[in-house]
Amino acid sequence: MNQPLDVAILGATGAVGQRFIQLLDGHPWFRVREVVASDRSAGQRYGDAARWVLPGNPPDAVAELPVLPLDAALDSPLVFSALPGDIAESVEWRLAQAGHVVCSNASAYRMHEHVPLLLPEINADHARLIEVQRRVYGWGGGLATNSNCTSAPVAMSLAPLRQFGIEAVMAVSMQAISGAGYPGVPALDITENVIPYINGEEPKLETEPRKMLGTLRESTVDLLDCVISATCTRVPVLDGHLVSVSVRFAEAVGEAALREAWASFRGPDPVPDLPSAPDQPVVVRTEPDRPQPRRDRDAGGGMSAVVGRLRPDPVIGGWKYLALAHNTVRGAAGCSILNAELLVACGYL
Amino acid sequence: MNQPLDVAILGATGAVGQRFIQLLDGHPWFRVREVVASDRSAGQRYGDAARWVLPGNPPDAVAELPVLPLDAALDSPLVFSALPGDIAESVEWRLAQAGHVVCSNASAYRMHEHVPLLLPEINADHARLIEVQRRVYGWGGGLATNSNCTSAPVAMSLAPLRQFGIEAVMAVSMQAISGAGYPGVPALDITENVIPYINGEEPKLETEPRKMLGTLRESTVDLLDCVISATCTRVPVLDGHLVSVSVRFAEAVGEAALREAWASFRGPDPVPDLPSAPDQPVVVRTEPDRPQPRRDRDAGGGMSAVVGRLRPDPVIGGWKYLALAHNTVRGAAGCSILNAELLVACGYL
Amino acid sequence: MNQPLDVAILGATGAVGQRFIQLLDGHPWFRVREVVASDRSAGQRYGDAARWVLPGNPPDAVAELPVLPLDAALDSPLVFSALPGDIAESVEWRLAQAGHVVCSNASAYRMHEHVPLLLPEINADHARLIEVQRRVYGWGGGLATNSNCTSAPVAMSLAPLRQFGIEAVMAVSMQAISGAGYPGVPALDITENVIPYINGEEPKLETEPRKMLGTLRESTVDLLDCVISATCTRVPVLDGHLVSVSVRFAEAVGEAALREAWASFRGPDPVPDLPSAPDQPVVVRTEPDRPQPRRDRDAGGGMSAVVGRLRPDPVIGGWKYLALAHNTVRGAAGCSILNAELLVACGYL
Amino acid sequence: MNQPLDVAILGATGAVGQRFIQLLDGHPWFRVREVVASDRSAGQRYGDAARWVLPGNPPDAVAELPVLPLDAALDSPLVFSALPGDIAESVEWRLAQAGHVVCSNASAYRMHEHVPLLLPEINADHARLIEVQRRVYGWGGGLATNSNCTSAPVAMSLAPLRQFGIEAVMAVSMQAISGAGYPGVPALDITENVIPYINGEEPKLETEPRKMLGTLRESTVDLLDCVISATCTRVPVLDGHLVSVSVRFAEAVGEAALREAWASFRGPDPVPDLPSAPDQPVVVRTEPDRPQPRRDRDAGGGMSAVVGRLRPDPVIGGWKYLALAHNTVRGAAGCSILNAELLVACGYL
Repeated sequence: MNQPLDVAILGATGAVGQRFIQLLDGHPWFRVREVVASDRSAGQRYGDAARWVLPGNPPDAVAELPVLPLDAALDSPLVFSALPGDIAESVEWRLAQAGHVVCSNASAYRMHEHVPLLLPEINADHARLIEVQRRVYGWGGGLATNSNCTSAPVAMSLAPLRQFGIEAVMAVSMQAISGAGYPGVPALDITENVIPYINGEEPKLETEPRKMLGTLRESTVDLLDCVISATCTRVPVLDGHLVSVSVRFAEAVGEAALREAWASFRGPDPVPDLPSAPDQPVVVRTEPDRPQPRRDRDAGGGMSAVVGRLRPDPVIGGWKYLALAHNTVRGAAGCSILNAELLVACGYL
Repeated sequence: MNQPLDVAILGATGAVGQRFIQLLDGHPWFRVREVVASDRSAGQRYGDAARWVLPGNPPDAVAELPVLPLDAALDSPLVFSALPGDIAESVEWRLAQAGHVVCSNASAYRMHEHVPLLLPEINADHARLIEVQRRVYGWGGGLATNSNCTSAPVAMSLAPLRQFGIEAVMAVSMQAISGAGYPGVPALDITENVIPYINGEEPKLETEPRKMLGTLRESTVDLLDCVISATCTRVPVLDGHLVSVSVRFAEAVGEAALREAWASFRGPDPVPDLPSAPDQPVVVRTEPDRPQPRRDRDAGGGMSAVVGRLRPDPVIGGWKYLALAHNTVRGAAGCSILNAELLVACGYL
Repeated sequence: MNQPLDVAILGATGAVGQRFIQLLDGHPWFRVREVVASDRSAGQRYGDAARWVLPGNPPDAVAELPVLPLDAALDSPLVFSALPGDIAESVEWRLAQAGHVVCSNASAYRMHEHVPLLLPEINADHARLIEVQRRVYGWGGGLATNSNCTSAPVAMSLAPLRQFGIEAVMAVSMQAISGAGYPGVPALDITENVIPYINGEEPKLETEPRKMLGTLRESTVDLLDCVISATCTRVPVLDGHLVSVSVRFAEAVGEAALREAWASFRGPDPVPDLPSAPDQPVVVRTEPDRPQPRRDRDAGGGMSAVVGRLRPDPVIGGWKYLALAHNTVRGAAGCSILNAELLVACGYL
Repeated sequence: MNQPLDVAILGATGAVGQRFIQLLDGHPWFRVREVVASDRSAGQRYGDAARWVLPGNPPDAVAELPVLPLDAALDSPLVFSALPGDIAESVEWRLAQAGHVVCSNASAYRMHEHVPLLLPEINADHARLIEVQRRVYGWGGGLATNSNCTSAPVAMSLAPLRQFGIEAVMAVSMQAISGAGYPGVPALDITENVIPYINGEEPKLETEPRKMLGTLRESTVDLLDCVISATCTRVPVLDGHLVSVSVRFAEAVGEAALREAWASFRGPDPVPDLPSAPDQPVVVRTEPDRPQPRRDRDAGGGMSAVVGRLRPDPVIGGWKYLALAHNTVRGAAGCSILNAELLVACGYL
């Protein structure tokens, strides 16, 4: 690109919005030019409106931007959305209609028949639903979503194993507090504790990976034909969702084949060459006590899933392992940015 | 009892040893008269030798006791053992031979054919193995063990459900740091982190509940005929092991029947009347986000297992729920004391 | 008392309100009969309205009470207030006027000239301001406050040392998250972090101890003539405020005299015989690494201050030490209950 | 430099040793060629011998190095020492004698009359003691130390204020667990707790800053003539020591002058141009609640001290503020590397 593409961030003051801004600082293709947030913040300087919860400070250039209201007309061709689901529903649709390409972290349209639930290494071909949107709705823009933060490590670790026929998956998650946004989880609840419930999370984890791993048919995606059982818990960890996964395959498969499938997994062209793509989408750790959220969440700049502890599971009749991904990078803002890079590479932007 | 029974504590300076001393303070039947620890501590006053890791101080009477070496001849008829497994093996056998009744938290003899793995509400009848020991080995004393701390909530929550035919169990644990003793887990490892591995733990969790829930036949216990798959992790929680359990039954069973089985579970006579028995061995919480380690571990004085979040599990073809127990009370010292109370009530002491 | 006195709790659903209810469960003199909270909760059953943040459950009898609105006429002669400062101002005054004795944890009236800032072991005589209130305002009831949670350990540890002439105090606090109420401090802020600022806290800590340690003169309290410099920080601890205190005395005093003053401190009659008074108001620990919040906050049922690490301070020209008290017990609800007991013993109720 | 200088790390498997290796990865002047550790590790591959406690993995090139024993003859001209104090004493002296330049994080020689306690921005001229060492002891090499990790933020924040005449300093620290090495602090001690004592720490904090801020006279350093009172505590934070500092000056000085002194502080040439020197040695935060360990420890790549909350202190008769520095970067390995860079720039290497 000769010149960086202007970008707007919706929900820019929240925890995921901040992560977008942090990850886009110095991005080779994109430059944050507009920040949008709720009416309470609108009109203020971003540096004053945002209570920055990441280390350090917001980048100077962004700190000086004025916060725009949710109904503002935007100039940026590319829009990242970190809005809450209910607000996202009307705002994102309107912007796609108005000619913007929206890459959204919100849940509103993830399961919509014409909206891709993109994770480029897994399903770059689903991006073609943008064309369907343009045909069906007459949009100049488009709308792509990324998955729930817990679906990311599950789908990424399962993707290289699709070849063995995934039939059933049991997932028990230990999720980080940043997944709940800011202010999010009260310290009085989670300090020295586990909360074995996250509102609305288990249905997402039982559905979204099936779409991500599904097959594009004409104008929609057929879900992968497998059953998922999810239990989601919150643990006192800042970033990084860890999931214990058990999986049954249609065919018999050995440990070496599974490890090899993970280690050699790269995703289709042009994904490995996109700026935010990690060298190794799935990193296999061989120590007995890895992956660990604090020590492995930043693998591949937070864009790799890390797996370990592969062992037979006599109950599901298959294998079990641990999978981890950084929930606000690969599981949110980072994946959305990679999705946008794919859409640029595909010529939709 | 007219007069309290004298009690010795093996491994008295360690974390579980301290919990024995704390729980026996003011016990109606037992009185700590001898404290035994490694040679390093032997000869010192207990109050000086023990780095007390529980809140407050050791009871004054115990603080003044001299620490005895591991090979000391003991006067107390009842001995509680909080020794490491390797040391326990020789010391406990010798003491049982010498006429003491040993109630051990160590793993050395848990799966020994003539040693009961006791949890009174579940398998009080297994105590009859003491008679087998006396007959086979000519002991005046006896040896009873309690389970691994993670097996406790799993076995307790499954016990009331045995009637439905337990076929398969999948368990993913989130275990507290006190389970590793003192000094145990370095803060540099577990702060803001999860360690998805505990050395030697998964095989125990895949075996011990089957013995606890098994059937006494003549001179040994037939394991329950079911398969267990375990994943054990360490989380930044002080006390209380939380386990996500999925279970498949031989017969179809509904939610109401499962809840009723838990709520009405009491254990056989004379267990409910023993001093350390909780009113309700299995407490059912109906809130969506319970049980939580910090808020539920002290239910029933730390002697109740707490269950919640009962839901169908489409993958195992049965039900899933969360179970919790205090790992150093019900999962260690408290259970051992309840076991000793049962042995007294049965006339073995 | 032949029959327990009925008690109302204002702000009953908050964190301190819950602590009142927990501490009053089984109280020999008082019985919770009315619970009052904001309009949002009013009309609901307490068990449904309150998100219980303490371990276990609210007591059954209280869980069944209906939540009353803030403007309700109350039947209980004794009212405990855990209201936020701004709401407390109008509600507490109205209730005192209406004939209730109000014991308040709110800050609104702590420094009011006719309102005692009571901590019975220190200044039981200040309770006579109730008589002043009745004379000046024509009240049938009365209003007594307890201090800010951080002032409690500072004032309690200084009280026995007043005899040596307190001239200057430097205090650096490490405060628990429960001091901020619920939801209070976001986990994203305090996990693995220290926040070196608590809004409004330092001015309180620089003023309130001077009133608590001051002298009753006719119809008001003369502040102790000393200067206090405070720095207040928040640390990832659930309960228990720890304060590093340096103090300069008017006269030379040795270590032994200071220790003896603490150890022998009891407070004036009838305080030591009140139901909530601890045996030892100031507990002196002699280990090098105590007091610690988690291990010492429950000393004296949470009603003792714990001190340790007494050493000369060459900069202030005096002594330095660490002081600790349980912030929601001695520093809030527990102290308020002890205050009420004192008012009963003095015949004001 | 045309070619990187070979470097040896003593105590390479410990927590600070690992930080040396991490920070030297990709260093423009230095390259790790030898790793030395206790006999237990000697002979193993570094990647096998070290339990890596930092995120990710050790650099590949270092992981392949064999661990050398403590008495090995070394080839590297530059040696970094992360040895425990008692072992450091003999090993470091021997290596300096043998012609190596040793930059040590150990405490053994910090207060030795001919050894500089270097923090380049503050006292680069003290490096001339290397010449004294060569003259007095006939060494070809030399020995320079860096301060205790808590002395670093105190000395760095005081250095720009020397001009106002520092007379007295009171410091209360809240120190991170990484300061205790690995395994270091047990999680059972520090979880949800503060430990108000660190063995040997307060005397260091009361002495070392006086040498760092002192004046080079001939062959030794005159300590700064001021008195320091220190209280050191451990808090549940991974990295970053936060210190509440009160200071009295010889002359009256206003807030603006203090802020300006901090903001404009750079250190003498050639320090600002050394590879590890941060742009801003002292970063001034103006928000009311900063500096915070987690959010500010990485300022300047972990090499800046961060100060904030400047307020008058009526007790010391001066000013008070909070200061923070990353304890294993600026307070240990990073400072030692900067010291070595200075020694290279000065021609001692």
